[in-house]
This record gives sequence, C-alpha cells and structure tokens, in this order.
Amino acid sequence: MDGSPVSAPQGLLLDALRRGNIMSPDCPSRGVLDHLTSRWGVLVLVALEGGTLRFSALRRLIGGVSERMLAQTLRQLEQDGLLQRRAFDVVPPHVEYSLTPMGREAAALMRVLTDWIELNISDILNYRTKHGTGA
Amino acid sequence: MDGSPVSAPQGLLLDALRRGNIMSPDCPSRGVLDHLTSRWGVLVLVALEGGTLRFSALRRLIGGVSERMLAQTLRQLEQDGLLQRRAFDVVPPHVEYSLTPMGREAAALMRVLTDWIELNISDILNYRTKHGTGA
Repeated sequence: MDGSPVSAPQGLLLDALRRGNIMSPDCPSRGVLDHLTSRWGVLVLVALEGGTLRFSALRRLIGGVSERMLAQTLRQLEQDGLLQRRAFDVVPPHVEYSLTPMGREAAALMRVLTDWIELNISDILNYRTKHGTGA
Repeated sequence: MDGSPVSAPQGLLLDALRRGNIMSPDCPSRGVLDHLTSRWGVLVLVALEGGTLRFSALRRLIGGVSERMLAQTLRQLEQDGLLQRRAFDVVPPHVEYSLTPMGREAAALMRVLTDWIELNISDILNYRTKHGTGA
C-alpha cells in the first residue's frame, strides 16, 4: 500500500498470512463463522437483505425469535461490522438496522443457502422417511 | 408426474407449497439449517468436498472437534441425506465418509461461505479494533 516494491511471490505470501484458516481452532474466523451461521444470524442477514428494518419488524418477520436472542444476534453482527444500528432520540424509542456493504455480501451468501434449503427440503424429508431416520 | 394436465399457474402453486419457508418456526427447513450451519456441520461438509475421508482423518483435519461432536455431526448429516457412511468389516474398524450428490451441492455453498470469511477476517478484526468491540 505504501508503494514499496513487493515481488509477486512475496505478495502472495502476505495474502496467505492475512487470510484466515477456518480449520484451525485458534483462528478468529471460527468466531465469525459462529456469529454468521447461528440460526438467528442467518435469518437476520436474510431478513435485512430487503432493506432497513426496525427491531419490531425484524421480530415479526423472523418467526420464533425471542426479544433477547434477537438483541444478542444484532449486537454480534454489529460488532463484526456486518450491520449498522441507528437509534433515533424519540419516545417511544425508534431503532433501525441495516446491512453494511460487508454485511450485504454475507447476506447474499446466506440467501443462496436458505434458498437451497427451502428448495431441497422435500427431498431431505423424503430421504429421512425412506431411511427411517428422524429429525 | 403422472401425466395429468396441470396448468402453469397451478404448477407454480404446487411448487410454492412444496417449497419450505425458513422464516416460519414450524418449517422443517429450520432443522436442516441448524444441522448445516452448526460449526462442525459446516467444517465437515467443507472437509469432505475434497473427497472420501475416514473418521480419524476428518478429526485431524478439523481442528478442535471432539470425537463425540464429530460423531454426532456426521450422524445428523447422514440422516439428512448429505453424506454416506461406509463401514468395512475389519479389525480395527474402518469407516469412511463421503458426500452424496445433495451433500456436494451443500458443501459447495459452505465453501463459498468459509472462503468469504477467511478472506474478510482481517477487515472484520480491523473493524472490531477501530470500534473497540470485543470478539
């Protein structure tokens, strides 16, 4: 970035060092994986893909989430820089959530995943029935 | 499937009925989401993308997984029809795991996700540092 000459192999090495390794138990990428792929993390990202939403609207949209779990999930994703919280100084409180550019990238990946599950759920249930395996 | 005439709108309606709804707390797609996106579920799928592996090799590859959690994760993914277990009748026991065609689709999605996290982990950590938010 400072214009100093970096040979191609050295540049590749630096990239490799900067990249996480999800298979390593000590890599911080593990924590991000947990936040992103928590049940509510996935659904919050997918819900916000459509645009900014208030806490109450998110809670209505994501069936079954408790107030506490939704608040915790939103906080984690905000701390990872994936979403932005905007609080308006009014009574009653008005708080809005929207995706950051990085969050939009993550949400798009999650949308592909949930689409895939929604489309394949019949096959998966059929498989379970045929093989006598429970949920 | 039986050749009876189904008009286009009716066909679309049938597709919609067969499709899951991940936002509904009662939809079985929620259970599949949990299996697929459990920390170890993601890592097992990604690990098996490279080909068939034995239990011991999986355990070595996926840093930090316990024998118990790996066995439970493999069982869940097998019950969903995403992977195949093959046991050879030898001493000591030899058990191999490989992805089914449906599992390969899921694994490809997971690989995109873990690649994204590994590539963005520096930005996420920088964000946390700048905003004074912990892990």
